[in-house]
Amino acid sequence: MTVRIGVIGVGMIGQDHIRRLTHVLSGARVVAVTDVDPDRARTVADDLPAVRLHRTGQDLIADDEVDAVVVTSWGPTHEEYVLAGIAAGKQVFCEKPLAPTREACERILDAEVAVGRRLVMVGFMRRYDAQYRSMKETVTSGDIGAPLLMHAAHRNPSVPGLFTSDMTITDSAVHDIDVARWMFDDELAAVTVFKPRVNSNAAAGFDDPLLVLLELAGGVLVDVEASVNAAYGYDIRGEVVCESGTVELSESAGTIVKRAGGYAGRIPVDWRERFVRAFDTEFQAWIDAVAAGTTTGPSVWDGYAATVGTDAGLAALRTGQRVPVTMRERPDLYKPV
Amino acid sequence: MTVRIGVIGVGMIGQDHIRRLTHVLSGARVVAVTDVDPDRARTVADDLPAVRLHRTGQDLIADDEVDAVVVTSWGPTHEEYVLAGIAAGKQVFCEKPLAPTREACERILDAEVAVGRRLVMVGFMRRYDAQYRSMKETVTSGDIGAPLLMHAAHRNPSVPGLFTSDMTITDSAVHDIDVARWMFDDELAAVTVFKPRVNSNAAAGFDDPLLVLLELAGGVLVDVEASVNAAYGYDIRGEVVCESGTVELSESAGTIVKRAGGYAGRIPVDWRERFVRAFDTEFQAWIDAVAAGTTTGPSVWDGYAATVGTDAGLAALRTGQRVPVTMRERPDLYKPV
Amino acid sequence: MTVRIGVIGVGMIGQDHIRRLTHVLSGARVVAVTDVDPDRARTVADDLPAVRLHRTGQDLIADDEVDAVVVTSWGPTHEEYVLAGIAAGKQVFCEKPLAPTREACERILDAEVAVGRRLVMVGFMRRYDAQYRSMKETVTSGDIGAPLLMHAAHRNPSVPGLFTSDMTITDSAVHDIDVARWMFDDELAAVTVFKPRVNSNAAAGFDDPLLVLLELAGGVLVDVEASVNAAYGYDIRGEVVCESGTVELSESAGTIVKRAGGYAGRIPVDWRERFVRAFDTEFQAWIDAVAAGTTTGPSVWDGYAATVGTDAGLAALRTGQRVPVTMRERPDLYKPV
Amino acid sequence: MTVRIGVIGVGMIGQDHIRRLTHVLSGARVVAVTDVDPDRARTVADDLPAVRLHRTGQDLIADDEVDAVVVTSWGPTHEEYVLAGIAAGKQVFCEKPLAPTREACERILDAEVAVGRRLVMVGFMRRYDAQYRSMKETVTSGDIGAPLLMHAAHRNPSVPGLFTSDMTITDSAVHDIDVARWMFDDELAAVTVFKPRVNSNAAAGFDDPLLVLLELAGGVLVDVEASVNAAYGYDIRGEVVCESGTVELSESAGTIVKRAGGYAGRIPVDWRERFVRAFDTEFQAWIDAVAAGTTTGPSVWDGYAATVGTDAGLAALRTGQRVPVTMRERPDLYKPV
Repeated sequence: MTVRIGVIGVGMIGQDHIRRLTHVLSGARVVAVTDVDPDRARTVADDLPAVRLHRTGQDLIADDEVDAVVVTSWGPTHEEYVLAGIAAGKQVFCEKPLAPTREACERILDAEVAVGRRLVMVGFMRRYDAQYRSMKETVTSGDIGAPLLMHAAHRNPSVPGLFTSDMTITDSAVHDIDVARWMFDDELAAVTVFKPRVNSNAAAGFDDPLLVLLELAGGVLVDVEASVNAAYGYDIRGEVVCESGTVELSESAGTIVKRAGGYAGRIPVDWRERFVRAFDTEFQAWIDAVAAGTTTGPSVWDGYAATVGTDAGLAALRTGQRVPVTMRERPDLYKPV
Repeated sequence: MTVRIGVIGVGMIGQDHIRRLTHVLSGARVVAVTDVDPDRARTVADDLPAVRLHRTGQDLIADDEVDAVVVTSWGPTHEEYVLAGIAAGKQVFCEKPLAPTREACERILDAEVAVGRRLVMVGFMRRYDAQYRSMKETVTSGDIGAPLLMHAAHRNPSVPGLFTSDMTITDSAVHDIDVARWMFDDELAAVTVFKPRVNSNAAAGFDDPLLVLLELAGGVLVDVEASVNAAYGYDIRGEVVCESGTVELSESAGTIVKRAGGYAGRIPVDWRERFVRAFDTEFQAWIDAVAAGTTTGPSVWDGYAATVGTDAGLAALRTGQRVPVTMRERPDLYKPV
Repeated sequence: MTVRIGVIGVGMIGQDHIRRLTHVLSGARVVAVTDVDPDRARTVADDLPAVRLHRTGQDLIADDEVDAVVVTSWGPTHEEYVLAGIAAGKQVFCEKPLAPTREACERILDAEVAVGRRLVMVGFMRRYDAQYRSMKETVTSGDIGAPLLMHAAHRNPSVPGLFTSDMTITDSAVHDIDVARWMFDDELAAVTVFKPRVNSNAAAGFDDPLLVLLELAGGVLVDVEASVNAAYGYDIRGEVVCESGTVELSESAGTIVKRAGGYAGRIPVDWRERFVRAFDTEFQAWIDAVAAGTTTGPSVWDGYAATVGTDAGLAALRTGQRVPVTMRERPDLYKPV
Repeated sequence: MTVRIGVIGVGMIGQDHIRRLTHVLSGARVVAVTDVDPDRARTVADDLPAVRLHRTGQDLIADDEVDAVVVTSWGPTHEEYVLAGIAAGKQVFCEKPLAPTREACERILDAEVAVGRRLVMVGFMRRYDAQYRSMKETVTSGDIGAPLLMHAAHRNPSVPGLFTSDMTITDSAVHDIDVARWMFDDELAAVTVFKPRVNSNAAAGFDDPLLVLLELAGGVLVDVEASVNAAYGYDIRGEVVCESGTVELSESAGTIVKRAGGYAGRIPVDWRERFVRAFDTEFQAWIDAVAAGTTTGPSVWDGYAATVGTDAGLAALRTGQRVPVTMRERPDLYKPV
């Protein structure tokens, strides 16, 4: 029962997912692609056996040979394709963000709720990372008491020239917002953003790093250092402080080399190295679910909550104030069973 | 281009590989199985879509629908199936040992050399473990000078009642023998086995742990602690000492939990947990090679060398003496290009 | 040249310092003691060879046989003894706090400035901890760029019943305030205090843990988790984030024990275990300086700055607001040369 | 009660101990020195307040102002001074080796046994290292079962030009021999020495590293890698394997620096950095014992056992054979109470 997949958007991340679906995972096959850049789409299609090239995402979604859709196009276009997928009754995997505005997310929520069953998974891959999963298991087990605080750091070695402080919130801290909601099974209540001394490696006018303080409804505080000019590597840190103990992400496994007066371990160079297995696990879970006629993982509600959270983060960054988070009521469809 | 695979021997490890080929990896499908126990074969077949049940390994190998063969039957039967696979011109993945005796391995060598191309891969999965690969990269890079020594430990928490000290050599230390040959691109020159104080958890008459000293032709010494009643977990340790530095396997990644006066990380419970990714990587490499009409990884020569090495180890265990290792000349087919 | 020392206040910490001066360090001898509780003073004196018992701290300071004075009495009494020591021209080691109020600290500042030379060292022992010193060396070296942020945690396993959230600021976070000023050679600019979910192990009405955010004049932000019901041990964490790298306190040295599925290291049980060497180093530095006719280490200015900082912390805790820190101008006596 | 100490031999180690006794520890004072090089002795004496310069060790021992003697002269001279100290009824601290030959050690044994009480402590400082002590506590506690094996490494970054493979045994591995006897409260039964591939950084004709296998009477095996051209640092490793767990020395505490793609900790540059605290603790223990009219720590028996062990090691190095260790019967004076 091979799931036939169409991919909308074949940029860097889209191509990486095509590689994954074609050469790494079990039970899926890419049968159709499209891209805003037809040449790029053609180049990608030429590398794949028996794949159809579509002019538009809408055409791809309408293709009878396409069982399920992966949306990895530019963020602002997600809404259109996700809504079309829902309308077509096809399973959709949508990379984060679900959509860049609260209103767009709400339109998707309305559409999926109207259908009455989940058709969309949003790509928050950290939920599939072995270290984060182990951390959540420990927190949930209650072995070290109820959670009180989480300390997190999200460090990119560098970013392209067009990156802005707003993108630190929407592209980086958004992962930490999703992790916080998932780790503590709770919703975000407020966001405050602090600006430490600016890294001289950052482009002019760019506030980097940021210290983002997330308050959850149940009282857990999460402080997130979001740095995108950290230079030394891609480093994702986390420690959850509970009532009688803590649990933290360890340094990544590998080897320790001793030389020249020190012992040293490796830090990943980028998100691909750090989360390659999480992406594999996430996609295999989705393929298995789709093959079984359903979906899994982060929902439209989670995508909506993340966008609402980053909206608050952007306001906090702009105003220097604590910004409360307000969300609509959670539809039954997204309530835990 | 899906590779159609027949599996001979569907015990614990065979079933695990079927799961891997069916649900985890890309590009392969199990189409036929057989087992010395027909009921077990039938039960396994019933769980798979459209799989053929064969009465014997020979029948399975002869099946035109079978592109390639996985041999995971009892060690003493390997020779027969590997020879049949070679005779049929089909690619074979044979779990270690290639064969339990030097003579059987030599017959397989002769057969493959007569064909003139590699058709067999032997399952030494550590070569596909990310930590070992990183270690070998460091050793090979020359960054810390030429290798001089390796310290290794191979600890199983416990073993079934029928396990013997001989099996510590043939089932456990065999991996360390293969790692040593591979890590240093060298051949084994001699083996000595020391018997420390016996673990009182070992069955009566069972010498456990053993300290196995491997001498390589180029002078590198490898000391291997092989313990199979280590109780606390499945722990694989290794450190290569080079002229100006060392490289060691780190503790496995995961989380660190702080509680009750200590900080603690997890140790794998068994080889499945520790090497699950290595098995996946190993098999994907084989599938990809088979799809491309060739093979890869540990060769018949490596399988032969391992069996010759464990033979020496058994003699060393029995006699308490240093036992030199003698091998036939390496055929051109197995020389590095 | 043995320094003859008088100790004012022989409670737990005073007794520990007497043990240190008598049995551990070189070049000093305790010759006089006094305490608000005359029985306790007598008991302590009876254990020491040839020690004089004084009725009051003033008498002890006036004693011609006393070269230098250690003040380890109750915080509110420090001012009186430090001022008397300065008036007598004797070197004084005063445990933190220098004095509990800004005004008292300013009176001491005035007195020492009037004398024109430093006579007082304040006991911020972390500056003598090998790990913190190594951290500061790395930060100061510039090897990883300028500092931007510091993440810190100060966890006590438990506190006596009378402990309050105010004391978390004045007794725990005060150390982090001093470390921040010292680490970055900078002054505190503002303090904000956040209240995460309350640890159910805390006494009723006690906000624990606290998240204290320190802003330094130069822009470095320091987030300090101050927990005093952490249960699992006494754990002091710190990581300084610089422009191109970070430096963090490692787990304390010792042994790693592998058992029952995990590998584990020890966490100190209390501040004594964690900082025993720092106290030794701090006191030896003071003794050596006193023997050379001078003092060293944290000054009256540092004691004043710490009290001003904790005042701001208390206001921040009470109001929930960001509280700016204002200090008088730094006298020349305390300017770096 | 200050212990007045005379130091025989003021080379590098003698001077370091004088610094320790004068500036670091409590309760002792160096009052006399001597050295085979009178100029060196004078230079050292000129730096100390009120110290007497003696022409010979015998004169120093006879000095009534000298309560106890530290012997840090050249190994072959130890016997003469230790015997003189015993004859004078004075406490002696003798750096290792007690004496370089078995016969010399036996003469000292005879002399001390004739006196009927311990007057000599031998300087095996690892017994005072916090990590080794913690390791021994774990082994002795029985929490992880009886000990079976120990893996050790003793790595010096480099050695002076005159160093030989024999000295690897007598100067380096001697510490591991003492640690093994102490750790397991057992005696050495045999020694074998293996020669791995030679480090090209070693001087011509110098076998380095060595792999030394120690067999204890109770069956515990200890493998010791002794490297003296390890280049990267001074690295002392150890892991004791017990029946249900292991205990190992952790990397030394300090800070972890993240930069340029890696996280790194420091390795000590030399034995002084690694064991500075162990030397302090060892000497303070001796001073305290001497002040109380007795001695402590490694005894003449331990010194004798170490020399007998290194004799066996030298024979094993020369012959390539396993060399059994034979010792005289242990006198009652050295039996555990």
